Amino acid sequence: MTSPRIILLAHGSSDKRWCETFEQLADPTLKAVDNARIAYMELAEPSMDTVIAEGVAEGASDFIIIPLFLAAGRHLRKDVPAMIKELEHTHGASIHLAPPIGENPVLGQAIRDVVMMQLEKAPS
Amino acid sequence: MTSPRIILLAHGSSDKRWCETFEQLADPTLKAVDNARIAYMELAEPSMDTVIAEGVAEGASDFIIIPLFLAAGRHLRKDVPAMIKELEHTHGASIHLAPPIGENPVLGQAIRDVVMMQLEKAPS
Repeated sequence: MTSPRIILLAHGSSDKRWCETFEQLADPTLKAVDNARIAYMELAEPSMDTVIAEGVAEGASDFIIIPLFLAAGRHLRKDVPAMIKELEHTHGASIHLAPPIGENPVLGQAIRDVVMMQLEKAPS
Repeated sequence: MTSPRIILLAHGSSDKRWCETFEQLADPTLKAVDNARIAYMELAEPSMDTVIAEGVAEGASDFIIIPLFLAAGRHLRKDVPAMIKELEHTHGASIHLAPPIGENPVLGQAIRDVVMMQLEKAPS
């Protein structure tokens, strides 16, 4: 049995700058984790459907979706679980939805580090 | 002249669980930085107006707003700058809008760390 494939799920936007920021956010993970991908919930490509279809074509059957969201709102509580249920049916895959990254304490520490950098730059 | 006050700006929601996640995300910063506060753009309290009014009443005149957003969309490109302009006028304060936290490379590294933890938990 192969390891589950990681999909970093971003919201998506028709604004390319939005997607570029998420691609930069995903970059360290994509470099560190074999076969990890970014996918967008809506308004941008690749979609979850595209990425899971590619994975299944390459022999993968298990996926973990890690939402690049700071907190869970309606999208993660309702829309994405419904999409996953349909994707599992369509692709015969097992798809696990992980908590949004913002629920991991690592993120709060990273925010503190960003604020510290910002304060060093600020005139006082 | 005193240091600028840090305001961590979250989107806000009528869902208490949303705000609780942001309060946990803000916690390491609020413990590390004197007079730092969290504020919500909409749908939750305290608002930016509330937090800036309190700061000004305590003698502060300079504020840095650090958006707890992973990327800049319409809210950060249009809505928040317009709100800031009005808040500066209302309170006679100087308010600087910093980039969203997601534009700092520290966040991409934190995401990689979260994914690594998730992979350790996953059955393989």
